[in-house]
Amino acid sequence: MKLATYTTKGKTAIGLVRGDRIVDLSALAPDMIALISSDALMAKAKATPADAPSLALADVTLRAPVLNPGKILAIGLNYRDHVEESKMALPEHQVWFNKQHNCVNDPYGTINKPVVSDMLDYEAEMCFVISKRCKHVPVERAHEVIGGYFVGNDATVRDWQLRTNTWQIGKSFDTHGPVGPWITTADELGDPHTLDIKGYVNGELRQSSNTKHLIFNCFDQVAHLSQAFTLDAGDIIFSGTPSGVGMAMKPPSVLKVGDVVRVEIEKLGHIENKVVLENGATVIG
Amino acid sequence: MKLATYTTKGKTAIGLVRGDRIVDLSALAPDMIALISSDALMAKAKATPADAPSLALADVTLRAPVLNPGKILAIGLNYRDHVEESKMALPEHQVWFNKQHNCVNDPYGTINKPVVSDMLDYEAEMCFVISKRCKHVPVERAHEVIGGYFVGNDATVRDWQLRTNTWQIGKSFDTHGPVGPWITTADELGDPHTLDIKGYVNGELRQSSNTKHLIFNCFDQVAHLSQAFTLDAGDIIFSGTPSGVGMAMKPPSVLKVGDVVRVEIEKLGHIENKVVLENGATVIG
Repeated sequence: MKLATYTTKGKTAIGLVRGDRIVDLSALAPDMIALISSDALMAKAKATPADAPSLALADVTLRAPVLNPGKILAIGLNYRDHVEESKMALPEHQVWFNKQHNCVNDPYGTINKPVVSDMLDYEAEMCFVISKRCKHVPVERAHEVIGGYFVGNDATVRDWQLRTNTWQIGKSFDTHGPVGPWITTADELGDPHTLDIKGYVNGELRQSSNTKHLIFNCFDQVAHLSQAFTLDAGDIIFSGTPSGVGMAMKPPSVLKVGDVVRVEIEKLGHIENKVVLENGATVIG
Repeated sequence: MKLATYTTKGKTAIGLVRGDRIVDLSALAPDMIALISSDALMAKAKATPADAPSLALADVTLRAPVLNPGKILAIGLNYRDHVEESKMALPEHQVWFNKQHNCVNDPYGTINKPVVSDMLDYEAEMCFVISKRCKHVPVERAHEVIGGYFVGNDATVRDWQLRTNTWQIGKSFDTHGPVGPWITTADELGDPHTLDIKGYVNGELRQSSNTKHLIFNCFDQVAHLSQAFTLDAGDIIFSGTPSGVGMAMKPPSVLKVGDVVRVEIEKLGHIENKVVLENGATVIG
């Protein structure tokens, strides 16, 4: 199945994507986490009649598939060619950081060029969502807790990222986690580690790789993280970016207001986000 | 005011601490975030009659003041003496990492000695909670968005922390964020940067400093973070630890099962947590 969160006529709902149409599943569950965390509801979604009423995708606004993830983890230095272009050592251990949930953005939402930095960059990534609360998951059972896969852009503010070793704040600006366009369930996708992944800026191909090149694959990632802490249904994992980020170009290139970044992954679809200038006003309350 | 979350007879509620008693405030709001984010509700809490019915604190279980923070940020290397004992350079910029919300623990809850590590350590810290959704808060207005202060232990798994530069996973094990015993509101506390802070293991004083030694104070922290992303009511900030952590002792000392760690801060009270062996079973669903 392809499962989306969408807004139409001011109402946000979850739905089943079929070709260029979407079937409302809001009678099954109030949001994506409630749906994907229930085997019974997923079976009902799968049994949606072929003639169920549907809307044209063109008539709805696709939203981030999971609007309110409990946490977002992202792994760095996870494609060999990106490690090399970053002039880093090949990691012996998985290198993790968080993105704040505030960065969650729609598949075609706008990305902020921050007022405090001119070094906005993109990172094309495959993402996945956890479907079952879990701890200490062995690698060979990790597939059981992954609800599905989707496309993401781990947008990054390079100067803020690289001025401390923890990278944290530069990875977490508001709007800097566009994801979508929908969740492709694990059973529909098959092997997640055979997919072409591409990143474009204004139509120019910048990143081109395949998820088979992940150093630590998605199952390794779940096994590692769940040794330390509980993963919850709805948690999102960004699985790493291949080479071709703007910072590593010669000369380095940054995203400017008006640029359009597109990330596409075989079988998962694409997201596309235009860069706009952040409103830097003080907001309190 | 001193505001606590507590459980009694299977019911969890928020309450107003008065001496050794607590007044139920659950008629005002369902949880701490709802209370502290509303000026009107805070005024009502403050107007609680002097003769309101109350329970003995000894008869309730104090819980983490905020049970479900949207995010937890923690700053590293923020006391000069701790920077020196860690053999790190004095940071030019604020060094941040996240703790996962799963680590939230009660003020007298047990802390897990992980099955995957024998290098569990403690870090006595002052914490504070955000009370107003905010962005781009100038330093001089940061006090407006802080709801109050409390005691925390940024429990850390040193080998997992230090094997990657981002530190992330070793800072985020389940149970490794005990906090409490209650929120002391900013108006009751006065200046948060004049407080003695002490950490003990099995009664032995290990850490002793004063929050006046914070390199980046609480207001600097709010100003910095809110340049990057929205802070939400209920977000928790760990403001850094002074020298005296187990790793820096000669020889290094780690926490063992049965050890009791106590953190106390002037005017804010104390938390005390016993170390137990983690149940390392695989849990799925």
